[in-house]
Amino acid sequence: MPHDRLLVALAATSALLLATASHAQDADLRAQAAAIFKPLPKTMTSPDNPITPEKVALGRMLFFETRVSEDGTVSCARCHLPWLYGIDGLQKPIGAEHRVNPRNAPTVLNAALQISAHWRGDRKSVEDQATQALVGPPSFGNPSYEAAMARLKTIPGYPPLFAKAFTKDADPVTPENWGKAIGAYERTLVTPSPFDRYLGGDETALSAEAKAGLREFMQVGCITCHNGVGVGGGMYQKFGLVEDYWKATGSPTPDKGRFDVTKDPADMYVFKVPSLRNVAMTPPYFHDGSLATLPEAVRVMGRVQLGRMLNDEQIGRIVAFLRSLTGSLPEGLATTPVLPVAPFAAPKKP
Amino acid sequence: MPHDRLLVALAATSALLLATASHAQDADLRAQAAAIFKPLPKTMTSPDNPITPEKVALGRMLFFETRVSEDGTVSCARCHLPWLYGIDGLQKPIGAEHRVNPRNAPTVLNAALQISAHWRGDRKSVEDQATQALVGPPSFGNPSYEAAMARLKTIPGYPPLFAKAFTKDADPVTPENWGKAIGAYERTLVTPSPFDRYLGGDETALSAEAKAGLREFMQVGCITCHNGVGVGGGMYQKFGLVEDYWKATGSPTPDKGRFDVTKDPADMYVFKVPSLRNVAMTPPYFHDGSLATLPEAVRVMGRVQLGRMLNDEQIGRIVAFLRSLTGSLPEGLATTPVLPVAPFAAPKKP
Repeated sequence: MPHDRLLVALAATSALLLATASHAQDADLRAQAAAIFKPLPKTMTSPDNPITPEKVALGRMLFFETRVSEDGTVSCARCHLPWLYGIDGLQKPIGAEHRVNPRNAPTVLNAALQISAHWRGDRKSVEDQATQALVGPPSFGNPSYEAAMARLKTIPGYPPLFAKAFTKDADPVTPENWGKAIGAYERTLVTPSPFDRYLGGDETALSAEAKAGLREFMQVGCITCHNGVGVGGGMYQKFGLVEDYWKATGSPTPDKGRFDVTKDPADMYVFKVPSLRNVAMTPPYFHDGSLATLPEAVRVMGRVQLGRMLNDEQIGRIVAFLRSLTGSLPEGLATTPVLPVAPFAAPKKP
Repeated sequence: MPHDRLLVALAATSALLLATASHAQDADLRAQAAAIFKPLPKTMTSPDNPITPEKVALGRMLFFETRVSEDGTVSCARCHLPWLYGIDGLQKPIGAEHRVNPRNAPTVLNAALQISAHWRGDRKSVEDQATQALVGPPSFGNPSYEAAMARLKTIPGYPPLFAKAFTKDADPVTPENWGKAIGAYERTLVTPSPFDRYLGGDETALSAEAKAGLREFMQVGCITCHNGVGVGGGMYQKFGLVEDYWKATGSPTPDKGRFDVTKDPADMYVFKVPSLRNVAMTPPYFHDGSLATLPEAVRVMGRVQLGRMLNDEQIGRIVAFLRSLTGSLPEGLATTPVLPVAPFAAPKKP
């Protein structure tokens, strides 16, 4: 065989071997990923709050309803804007009477998959979060649940919708049912992404760079906390395992996190691990919104959680993987309900 | 002919005569109405700002964009909520840094049909309104147009969309083009109503009560000001022609209206006559949002503008007619755009 023919044959054999190896590696990567992550369900049902069309329709209206807030400007959508993937883009949300929330607003998308709501896990569920927001000073700002329900009842269209959604209740307009209706709506806000298609067996759903990023994400140890269906959202963890987070992020003051809720010293600087679904669409990052871009956030996480100084190539690959977690917005978010007409709910101190 | 048969025949004849009379009256009413009002066009085009798909798509995004405001919470939709028929339900809107606007927010629906924007007509067009809102202290609150454009340019997705919408401009991200894009979008927000179908010849589109209300509306003199395609919105008029409006409405302080704009004594207490399209869906009423319900508003208008003490039956009929001006929301309002992802625009004073 002439020399050049031999080279061609060798090259062809190498390419075949490489392709086979790559194919085997690909299948291996997906098998590993499938053991660590899970594709999204169609909806996030709960035995405590079964999803019904009546609850979802009412909850969707209530999600956008400002007239139940103290100053008439705050709805759930004030901090969870549908067209910003369920966040507001601020470091810290601003609620009723312009009061600033203590922590960044997490997205409402896929939120019901998580073990709890809010950064410190001090809201049991999306229902609990929606109910408590009614009286949270930097949220809706009502002085009491009674005041909130009184405002809601000034809007003639709502009581019949509550009666339809909660047929067994004699007096259905309650803070708990407000939470259940909004919770049922939020349980429909699922955003299937390329990564879900990949986990479902579609090798073409991820780019080569995103696959390399997935491998990096698993190898460097991100999956210790960011795993499961939410790629996070399933556990609590200290922020700053290796070094103080506030030094690495430039945060003005440390936030003691879950310690302030439980008073357990083991919970000092502990926060809920956020889900990374749609993370590319939801800057700024961390509980204090201290970092504006995803590469910065990946760099800091590597450093303060894993003690690793990730290089730009590693960060680029991980970010490519994280972008594959950006999902398509649910239909329920894309359609505008028309809220019941009502006399105004004027702010008390205009 | 026996007595009872005679009665039956008489009744039948009367019914026939009444029906004929009623039919003639109906046709007459519609002919009168057609001379005074006009059905809505499909879109509200302007030679100064032709509607293009690129401008509308960009304008719809900008309409919901909060990150260009001083505190990151104000978009056009802050005061013009789609699901409240383009208003916010407040007496007076609350904008950036919680500053209160001096006057009630008029609906953005069909707004481009009017002679000018705002209650005092101090905004030439919907485009001018959108542009000036960028620096209005109780609107977006930016200290300057330069500051507003700097914020807008921090969002990487926007400059290419401006370039697509304004192909002839070398530097298309300008306050004028912000106004033109939002204006083009708003020029699509037309809400055809039962009254438009009626004007188009469909006698069944209005109930008998609404027709009686239309007759009343024309006879008592409302049409002196509330006429044309907007059923208002085409002229300026003194509020309180017969008696002081602030006494009849319980407004805390008189607003001098257009006088403060023109300094012409003839403009004292003069306001733009609002369009009554969707009026049933847009409480509270008047430039100061002083009245919560439509019957109250009709009663006060009769008294202070026409010197007439309308009775409950007259008011009920007029309100039935006004309800026929409630239109169906345009599709462009019902679909959620996804805004470009961006680093945050944090408020300066959190």
